[in-house]
Amino acid sequence: MIRDDLRKQRIETPSWAYGNSGTRFKVFAQPGVPRDPYEKVADAAQVHRFTGIAPTVALHIPWDRVPDYGHLASHARELGLGIGAINANVFQDDDYKLGSVTNPDPVVRRKAVHHLLECADIMDATGSDTLKLWFADGTNYPGQDDIRARQDRLAEALGIVHERLGDGQRLLLEYKLFEPAFYVTDVPDWGTAYAHCVKLGPKAQVVVDTGHHAPGTNIEFIVAFLLREGKLGGFDFNSRFYADDDLMAGSADPFQLFRIMFEVVRGGGYTDEVAFMLDQCHNVEPKIAGQIRSVMNVQEATAKALLVDRVALAAAQGEGDVLEANAVLMDAYATDVRPLLASVRTEMGVDPDPMAAYAKSGYFAKICADRVGGAQAGWGP
Amino acid sequence: MIRDDLRKQRIETPSWAYGNSGTRFKVFAQPGVPRDPYEKVADAAQVHRFTGIAPTVALHIPWDRVPDYGHLASHARELGLGIGAINANVFQDDDYKLGSVTNPDPVVRRKAVHHLLECADIMDATGSDTLKLWFADGTNYPGQDDIRARQDRLAEALGIVHERLGDGQRLLLEYKLFEPAFYVTDVPDWGTAYAHCVKLGPKAQVVVDTGHHAPGTNIEFIVAFLLREGKLGGFDFNSRFYADDDLMAGSADPFQLFRIMFEVVRGGGYTDEVAFMLDQCHNVEPKIAGQIRSVMNVQEATAKALLVDRVALAAAQGEGDVLEANAVLMDAYATDVRPLLASVRTEMGVDPDPMAAYAKSGYFAKICADRVGGAQAGWGP
Amino acid sequence: MIRDDLRKQRIETPSWAYGNSGTRFKVFAQPGVPRDPYEKVADAAQVHRFTGIAPTVALHIPWDRVPDYGHLASHARELGLGIGAINANVFQDDDYKLGSVTNPDPVVRRKAVHHLLECADIMDATGSDTLKLWFADGTNYPGQDDIRARQDRLAEALGIVHERLGDGQRLLLEYKLFEPAFYVTDVPDWGTAYAHCVKLGPKAQVVVDTGHHAPGTNIEFIVAFLLREGKLGGFDFNSRFYADDDLMAGSADPFQLFRIMFEVVRGGGYTDEVAFMLDQCHNVEPKIAGQIRSVMNVQEATAKALLVDRVALAAAQGEGDVLEANAVLMDAYATDVRPLLASVRTEMGVDPDPMAAYAKSGYFAKICADRVGGAQAGWGP
Amino acid sequence: MIRDDLRKQRIETPSWAYGNSGTRFKVFAQPGVPRDPYEKVADAAQVHRFTGIAPTVALHIPWDRVPDYGHLASHARELGLGIGAINANVFQDDDYKLGSVTNPDPVVRRKAVHHLLECADIMDATGSDTLKLWFADGTNYPGQDDIRARQDRLAEALGIVHERLGDGQRLLLEYKLFEPAFYVTDVPDWGTAYAHCVKLGPKAQVVVDTGHHAPGTNIEFIVAFLLREGKLGGFDFNSRFYADDDLMAGSADPFQLFRIMFEVVRGGGYTDEVAFMLDQCHNVEPKIAGQIRSVMNVQEATAKALLVDRVALAAAQGEGDVLEANAVLMDAYATDVRPLLASVRTEMGVDPDPMAAYAKSGYFAKICADRVGGAQAGWGP
Repeated sequence: MIRDDLRKQRIETPSWAYGNSGTRFKVFAQPGVPRDPYEKVADAAQVHRFTGIAPTVALHIPWDRVPDYGHLASHARELGLGIGAINANVFQDDDYKLGSVTNPDPVVRRKAVHHLLECADIMDATGSDTLKLWFADGTNYPGQDDIRARQDRLAEALGIVHERLGDGQRLLLEYKLFEPAFYVTDVPDWGTAYAHCVKLGPKAQVVVDTGHHAPGTNIEFIVAFLLREGKLGGFDFNSRFYADDDLMAGSADPFQLFRIMFEVVRGGGYTDEVAFMLDQCHNVEPKIAGQIRSVMNVQEATAKALLVDRVALAAAQGEGDVLEANAVLMDAYATDVRPLLASVRTEMGVDPDPMAAYAKSGYFAKICADRVGGAQAGWGP
Repeated sequence: MIRDDLRKQRIETPSWAYGNSGTRFKVFAQPGVPRDPYEKVADAAQVHRFTGIAPTVALHIPWDRVPDYGHLASHARELGLGIGAINANVFQDDDYKLGSVTNPDPVVRRKAVHHLLECADIMDATGSDTLKLWFADGTNYPGQDDIRARQDRLAEALGIVHERLGDGQRLLLEYKLFEPAFYVTDVPDWGTAYAHCVKLGPKAQVVVDTGHHAPGTNIEFIVAFLLREGKLGGFDFNSRFYADDDLMAGSADPFQLFRIMFEVVRGGGYTDEVAFMLDQCHNVEPKIAGQIRSVMNVQEATAKALLVDRVALAAAQGEGDVLEANAVLMDAYATDVRPLLASVRTEMGVDPDPMAAYAKSGYFAKICADRVGGAQAGWGP
Repeated sequence: MIRDDLRKQRIETPSWAYGNSGTRFKVFAQPGVPRDPYEKVADAAQVHRFTGIAPTVALHIPWDRVPDYGHLASHARELGLGIGAINANVFQDDDYKLGSVTNPDPVVRRKAVHHLLECADIMDATGSDTLKLWFADGTNYPGQDDIRARQDRLAEALGIVHERLGDGQRLLLEYKLFEPAFYVTDVPDWGTAYAHCVKLGPKAQVVVDTGHHAPGTNIEFIVAFLLREGKLGGFDFNSRFYADDDLMAGSADPFQLFRIMFEVVRGGGYTDEVAFMLDQCHNVEPKIAGQIRSVMNVQEATAKALLVDRVALAAAQGEGDVLEANAVLMDAYATDVRPLLASVRTEMGVDPDPMAAYAKSGYFAKICADRVGGAQAGWGP
Repeated sequence: MIRDDLRKQRIETPSWAYGNSGTRFKVFAQPGVPRDPYEKVADAAQVHRFTGIAPTVALHIPWDRVPDYGHLASHARELGLGIGAINANVFQDDDYKLGSVTNPDPVVRRKAVHHLLECADIMDATGSDTLKLWFADGTNYPGQDDIRARQDRLAEALGIVHERLGDGQRLLLEYKLFEPAFYVTDVPDWGTAYAHCVKLGPKAQVVVDTGHHAPGTNIEFIVAFLLREGKLGGFDFNSRFYADDDLMAGSADPFQLFRIMFEVVRGGGYTDEVAFMLDQCHNVEPKIAGQIRSVMNVQEATAKALLVDRVALAAAQGEGDVLEANAVLMDAYATDVRPLLASVRTEMGVDPDPMAAYAKSGYFAKICADRVGGAQAGWGP
């Protein structure tokens, strides 16, 4: 049963994880980095090849703009991958300095909405069923713009996009406490995203990025709450200690990741409707290996969550036995699930040790040798 | 116009601010502290006497339990006060160790709901139109109880209470990041309170306690958002630097208080429908004087908010002139509004310097002399 | 080797953990709670009986004031316990409302210093070698007192106490971000404690309370730094999610506790000179069982820290292999050390399952039956 | 007296504030941005021209690398400016991916130290007396490198640089909680910087960047403490709401800036020995105007700090009169100091309204017209 559940897990990796990235201080270039979306997809295929549970790759537009999206999707399919979420980008054009869909200038707003609609077209062309919307919009200074008017503009843009979606398509609205806006962020928390999604209707759901919360926020509470409301669309997994959100999932607080996965399981969210996506760019560690490790970290947290003895837990909770209820949960967390996962992988026909298998495969040496010349992909057009 | 607005401001003080309070480490007793609700009301009347804008006092049940609530209300009326919000207390009975309305034990839940309904009766008896609900409910440990089931129980209890409310009565649901629960708080943020209030209906609104947020939270954004949704019921004003919520309003971050008041004004919330309440207990400073000072701090922030040149602001915002828009706001904040307020007070027939007038009044010396013997009021039954 | 290290671990429990405690909102009384220091020591002995690694108990003065400290120490010795750190309390007297050793009033300062010297006398009487100093001192409002003058007063008081200490005695200075002071805390961070200890001399060291830091603080860095400077005196272990510091050690972030223990081991601090103490009071869970569980949590983190393959780690670090270095550390953390610890316990002659053994022992039922009448111990005189 | 103090204030602006900057998501280019260090110095001269209190400009190496530093200093002198602090940059070379002076590779460490020594040479060549050291060094993952060994390496590098400094030269060591390192930062807090500076000797002091602290940190406490120890070298002023540190000084929390300036004044730090520097790069607002506004914000906070009635304050503090002591401080803060500063400016021969005067000067239009072609300066080589 647990083995079945583990076998059917699906974790999506993002195309932008394979390109160069960094902080505002420095982007450190790495060898072997893709030069175009096709090479990114090829790298994503390696993560699936060695983990067996990463069968889709998310695209980011315009970073992954190609002349023929159907062709890119075919390329992915040949490598065993599907196209996952289409991620819109309305933050890297000079016009967006003061916002995209919330900009005080209606010309800029129209441009932004136009881009969002283009992303919907790309969903049609690639077969993607998910449009992921993260807005960098906000302000840096008190008074800079009208907080409430920006919500009106946001609602209007979301309405247009929601209207455009076809059957079987949905939009996921992401929230983030801060950055790149430093005073007001227009979608700063789950409450804001939730309120907009409720008004939009059933095709709109909230996506929880694990790195986007204020200190002290109980993320698993949000997960449980959104599942109860039918509004949890998925996750952007990553880790952070303070405020970045690009460390490998589970690397900063593996216990938190376990608690989140437990609420997913308990709340009936361990289905295809809740998308498990990674959203992290590795600055100092190798990119493909970093993604493999992240997928494994999510997988280990999932295995532990599935191991929780929910009957014993409910009994202890019902009796108000605080220590026993906590102990039931901690027993699962303390379990070393690596042998179980090695065995499941073998059943699935992948190597029991994905990191070692990838290292031995020679893929990294090959791309370092092949990918010379051309412009390395990274953040930016 | 600004003078008119300032004259009509109403800030409610809480009965519990006049009793002894402290931290978990120590409650420092003060001289002259009330021994019963009647004496608390008398102290609240002093705040109104010297500020002219604090005409109601909030009650806290069971701390303010009396045999005849109508009589208490009459007593208040004679002192020039009305009864403001009724604050329910379902956190100081041994039964509530693991929660009140969210307790896993249905017997405890029924007891808690019964108390909430008693508070509604007290509303009828005192003429109060507002029931303020803050739940200390939550858990301390992962696994201790089922996060989602607790939401179900909460929704059920709120539904019963909402149903009970008469015409012209409403409930305000308060949220708080943490404390006294340390792992999950059942209503931890505005999103949770908002979602419950939307489901309950028009008699349910959110109350924003300025001390109940995670670090980095933009409170004025929440204010603007809730006003846009018609769900801002009022404020519990107080200050904090890190995590307490009992310092005098405006004492830790007067600029934040100004920004909040500006959003109230801008969002059309400067009406009787949004209640301005203090919720703060003074540990080391004298209680009545501390309340007077707090009322004045809110008043000064309000005056500055009303002074903002909104036409100039909108123009600068529309042009995307970041520095000018910020400057317009800051010009109002930099203004010394004390002379204006002194003048408004004189117009209203109160002393232009409330702190000095209170000090000269001899009231404090009188209560210190009179209130010997009896048990000082404080937190607790 | 690891087994030897685990056998020699010593974790001290605090007498005040066995009494009633709570938050500022409510102290929930529990059955079987001690009525006097002798009963607290008896409860501490149970923790040692079932874990084998908790052979000392810390006292808190005046909570544990007895007529004859030598007699109390003998009582402890008969139960197999030694007296650990003496904890001074200069925060629960009305005189200390505005501070103890940093109070603007020299009379209050002298009273506080006198109490600290009394604690040194109790060290002599009980054979304790450690004086633990935590000051609740600070201010709630900007301007309330002179920040710098308070440091002068603090330095003077510490100098007197340090001077008083005999050979083989030391003082540990604790720091805490906030609470009960809400604006300035006079010893808010490790830097302040460290600077004072350096000036005092070799008998003064810093104690790290794991619950006393700002969000985002890297505690293991502080541990490594203080060990490098020879100034780490010990730990007060506990957990917190946001700002309380009384949850069971390791319950909120077991990975952090592991990282801390790893720095202790790596920095040569796994010796008798660095005291491992618990400082946590259980509000909703049973007290003795909560302490046993906490001791086990620290023990599990220690076992994992000892399991780290430091040769492999150093090699990966030297090569700049980020993923491999992280993996070496995580391999140890992912290990289920419970079987190892069960085996070590059996070797030590204690039950392999301390929680179950304590539950079966009937001790709790016995104290619930015996300890009726009398005043339950708790926070306060 | 206050006027004299205000006239002698000196606030240094940073050369990098005049170039393009942004977040990791996007750098928005602005018109009129300098193409070389000479143009940056010219822009800095405008800030001094209109404020009268910004007579030096800080350089950043290698961003401001020129063939002849003496010539650049002469150019500055002709524009009425001196060269302020030399800021070393050991974070933008691919070699520094895993650290500079703390890198595990000794070759990289030597390269980094060599750069720091080059900066000392530039001090000699430009007449700068201050070397400001900020290290981006740290790690992203637990286990990535040895926390303690990195401190050894840091101490060694600092020792070499300190040794190199001539008479009248000093180094300022900066600390920062996080970013760009996300797990361990090698100089994360003032305690670390302080401990290193004490060991280095009298030529080493701590610099406080107001944007580099954990949430809830009381920065004015740190200022007071460092002044008491003679180790406060200066400030990098800027603002932040959550975690960025590039907003205009005083824009996020003007009350905090006032409290900091008050501790500077009270602690005897309002002298040439404590350097007041801005360190902020404007992303969405015009650069020169943003610097002028920031200088004015610091000036206003200083004026208010100088206005505090310290005799009345000390009296209230001595009596333990919490409300009165707070009121004395707040009276100064509530004062509108803009008329005073306008008058002081007129005395100094600068326009009473620097922002308006700069706007009218036509300088911005001129540089927009002149500075076409060439590569705009920004972060990066």
